[in-house]
Amino acid sequence: MAEKYKLSGRGNHPEDSIFDISGRKIGGGNFAVIAGPCSVETEPQILSIARDVKNAGASFLRGGAFKPRTSPYAFSGLGLDGLDLLKIARAKTDLPIVTEIMSIDYLEQFANDVDIIQIGARNMQNYDLLHAVGRLGKPVLLKRGLSSTIDELLLAAEHIMASGTEEVILCERGIRTFETATRNTLDLSAVPVIKALSHLPVIVDPSHGTGYWNLVEPMALAAAACGADGLIIEVHNHPEAALCDGEQSVTPGVFKNIVRKVNIVRDAIANA
Amino acid sequence: MAEKYKLSGRGNHPEDSIFDISGRKIGGGNFAVIAGPCSVETEPQILSIARDVKNAGASFLRGGAFKPRTSPYAFSGLGLDGLDLLKIARAKTDLPIVTEIMSIDYLEQFANDVDIIQIGARNMQNYDLLHAVGRLGKPVLLKRGLSSTIDELLLAAEHIMASGTEEVILCERGIRTFETATRNTLDLSAVPVIKALSHLPVIVDPSHGTGYWNLVEPMALAAAACGADGLIIEVHNHPEAALCDGEQSVTPGVFKNIVRKVNIVRDAIANA
Amino acid sequence: MAEKYKLSGRGNHPEDSIFDISGRKIGGGNFAVIAGPCSVETEPQILSIARDVKNAGASFLRGGAFKPRTSPYAFSGLGLDGLDLLKIARAKTDLPIVTEIMSIDYLEQFANDVDIIQIGARNMQNYDLLHAVGRLGKPVLLKRGLSSTIDELLLAAEHIMASGTEEVILCERGIRTFETATRNTLDLSAVPVIKALSHLPVIVDPSHGTGYWNLVEPMALAAAACGADGLIIEVHNHPEAALCDGEQSVTPGVFKNIVRKVNIVRDAIANA
Amino acid sequence: MAEKYKLSGRGNHPEDSIFDISGRKIGGGNFAVIAGPCSVETEPQILSIARDVKNAGASFLRGGAFKPRTSPYAFSGLGLDGLDLLKIARAKTDLPIVTEIMSIDYLEQFANDVDIIQIGARNMQNYDLLHAVGRLGKPVLLKRGLSSTIDELLLAAEHIMASGTEEVILCERGIRTFETATRNTLDLSAVPVIKALSHLPVIVDPSHGTGYWNLVEPMALAAAACGADGLIIEVHNHPEAALCDGEQSVTPGVFKNIVRKVNIVRDAIANA
Repeated sequence: MAEKYKLSGRGNHPEDSIFDISGRKIGGGNFAVIAGPCSVETEPQILSIARDVKNAGASFLRGGAFKPRTSPYAFSGLGLDGLDLLKIARAKTDLPIVTEIMSIDYLEQFANDVDIIQIGARNMQNYDLLHAVGRLGKPVLLKRGLSSTIDELLLAAEHIMASGTEEVILCERGIRTFETATRNTLDLSAVPVIKALSHLPVIVDPSHGTGYWNLVEPMALAAAACGADGLIIEVHNHPEAALCDGEQSVTPGVFKNIVRKVNIVRDAIANA
Repeated sequence: MAEKYKLSGRGNHPEDSIFDISGRKIGGGNFAVIAGPCSVETEPQILSIARDVKNAGASFLRGGAFKPRTSPYAFSGLGLDGLDLLKIARAKTDLPIVTEIMSIDYLEQFANDVDIIQIGARNMQNYDLLHAVGRLGKPVLLKRGLSSTIDELLLAAEHIMASGTEEVILCERGIRTFETATRNTLDLSAVPVIKALSHLPVIVDPSHGTGYWNLVEPMALAAAACGADGLIIEVHNHPEAALCDGEQSVTPGVFKNIVRKVNIVRDAIANA
Repeated sequence: MAEKYKLSGRGNHPEDSIFDISGRKIGGGNFAVIAGPCSVETEPQILSIARDVKNAGASFLRGGAFKPRTSPYAFSGLGLDGLDLLKIARAKTDLPIVTEIMSIDYLEQFANDVDIIQIGARNMQNYDLLHAVGRLGKPVLLKRGLSSTIDELLLAAEHIMASGTEEVILCERGIRTFETATRNTLDLSAVPVIKALSHLPVIVDPSHGTGYWNLVEPMALAAAACGADGLIIEVHNHPEAALCDGEQSVTPGVFKNIVRKVNIVRDAIANA
Repeated sequence: MAEKYKLSGRGNHPEDSIFDISGRKIGGGNFAVIAGPCSVETEPQILSIARDVKNAGASFLRGGAFKPRTSPYAFSGLGLDGLDLLKIARAKTDLPIVTEIMSIDYLEQFANDVDIIQIGARNMQNYDLLHAVGRLGKPVLLKRGLSSTIDELLLAAEHIMASGTEEVILCERGIRTFETATRNTLDLSAVPVIKALSHLPVIVDPSHGTGYWNLVEPMALAAAACGADGLIIEVHNHPEAALCDGEQSVTPGVFKNIVRKVNIVRDAIANA
């Protein structure tokens, strides 16, 4: 039988992929933590958070410049100004940057300025965007859609890869269910399921996956324990004043402790 | 309290909207049936189906030229050639055409050639596309995302309307649930729920909503009975040979009978 | 291949079942409306409602005596006293009664006093209860579990029938999904799906299925249009003061109008 | 505000409950592993598995004597003979036994013979059973229903506790979602959510939660990492020949390795 996942599947690529992105490795035993605020707000904000998360052990800085918002009347990010602030933060901290693209209008800026281009959950099946980004050949972080199956996630990666990109990182970020105690239901079993089918790295977003900052630590530890290749965590220096997602953002202090514990769990399992 | 749905809600627009699109009315008691194949395949195919659905009482011809496909290796439509075939069918039958846009690369062609621009379920929260299409000011058919709430659907319409378009038709087409006996679960209660909140017309897609051709008639009748302003139905002259979605396509003969019964149900309720 | 649904399926019983229950027929073209309050509260309440729903065209009186409640601290019905009040209402109106059994402790009373024994959604897979009730051989109304598939519903009916009961009426009453605009998502496509597989009558509960009284009429009409064999509707003379489910209860006046329109839709389709 | 969860909530009982059940502790830092086959099949089978799981570090032996089955025609357990075999296994290994009750007909036998009475997912809202078992005052293992919210699970525990039982262990065992790659979606975030609200121990069932034996280890490690108080795992000496659930059963050898790694993860976090 032909491999359904020609490029993303293990059929034609049995060993784990290891990507070296701006000097940071992910996959095949290399764990990467991406951290930062939901939205880039001001230069002092992003610089402060960037320094804190670097100090805590993050490998990449995340921050939203273009924000998909359910309502057209909600704050939708600083746009290109936000991208400029991310570049300043990268210059001062040497952290590569990860940010979401929503429009092919900005392909060139993202190609020039961003280390990992994020495709958000709402756009996981926006094939036009998948193809356009795929043609750039730059590293992509692909988030699972809110009601996308694992099969559809892998085929979305396949769309990107068939367009010319090799480095696709998959991200489990919670799915939509009937449960209302959490914002979404974090489907951690997706991690071992995907890793059995695909050689691509899989990371977990416990911030969006749960919606509450106090659930981030336990789910980050769980993600590390079940084999994830990394985490993406929302960190804000003043969560109570954040322009978006404050409820699910941890402070730099909490974040530092999470990274420390995650490393302890990973070491314990590696030596088990 | 300010109206959350400024443009789509009844707060600022209590009465039902009635749109006159290329001479066909929809909304406020005017019922419209959109019919045609999943994909435009050949000139004889689309012409034959167009004539049959017109004869059966359809107001609009639908047909996919650009097809979103889960796998990059599946047939993805004839593209601009498909659009040309739709134009030929319109010229010969006088049926206005409805077809899905997936990329802002083709905005100009859609603006020139298409009577109602469809935004598919996968792109319901592709805000870049919503804004670009919204700026055209042409009639839009907006399909509900597979796991989108009614609130999110109305806010997606709000994105389009805030960009400059008045004529947005909403479409319930099934949501994703645990049930596997049907392709999706058609949420007909969405029709009266939306109509209580919004002045926009709401139509129902019993073909995608169920996934099986033999369920199209009962669910079309149910949609008419609960107040839908129209239907969109997949019709194929040779369902068993269709390039996509054959299992859920009805033949022109079955379609004609569905339209006849739908009209009987509507008349009965109108006179009740 | 052996019929999976030996007793409930059409494989061994192709024609629709028609049940004659205390003089009222259901199935095979016979439509039955079951109506009454969520809970039996007082004698004047149940008598008043019973007379009103009979007058409006109901065939059966429903009313909860034993109420399954999520919290142990909520009102859980009048118990055997409620059963006595239902019997009084039956004596005065000649309406057969339908009420839910929750415990095998009361099997004998239900066997003696109740015309149709209801098994609620929470107990659809309480096999001990299915078997005990099934051994009585009395008519059963089996409600679909909140997250039960159609397959599981039919197999639950099979449990009852294999225990000795022939007359099982199936009831679609909404399933649990991510949508929060309605209490549950009424899966009307279950009606034609079940009727294709099974000879048993299928009724619809638009009250629990939606959770809001103003959605009861449109969904009742839709249920009739897609082939349901009946309806079960919550009616209360003072919904605002009801001990439970007031929000989804219609008044007798509204109910009367619903029955009238449902009959018009059914007649129209029958003559189409 | 009054505590909604009077008996199960932390409002009236801030500290973690610790139960001592037949000499094994669970809760408040005490971790318990329950293991054994889906169904008790024969004396050699249950004895062999009991010895193996004890040797691997299990604290309790599980095994189904009464099996809830979707179809009435499927194997439904050995019944009281199965209970006798469990007692023999307990006598020979000194492992306390956990088994599911389905019917109040067997209350006395369960009260006499079983160390922890399990209430299965399908019966989580069978209030009659909850009350009857609750009146026994024996330790109960309460599994979350397939589409039950965390709130409903806690209120089901409340039903048991209000009837007279103090020792209720809650179990996350997967919920029903649209995803089909796993049998259910294991909702691990339920663990920290419940532990924030309730003092009761929470365990995780990665066997039913995923449906595949190769996912049991990663999800067991994840459960330990996010704060679960224990695990319940299906172990069979010949999974390929198991009378039920063979696909999700691990061998004793695999189980031993899982327990070893779980302990390493727990120790690492405890010392972090």
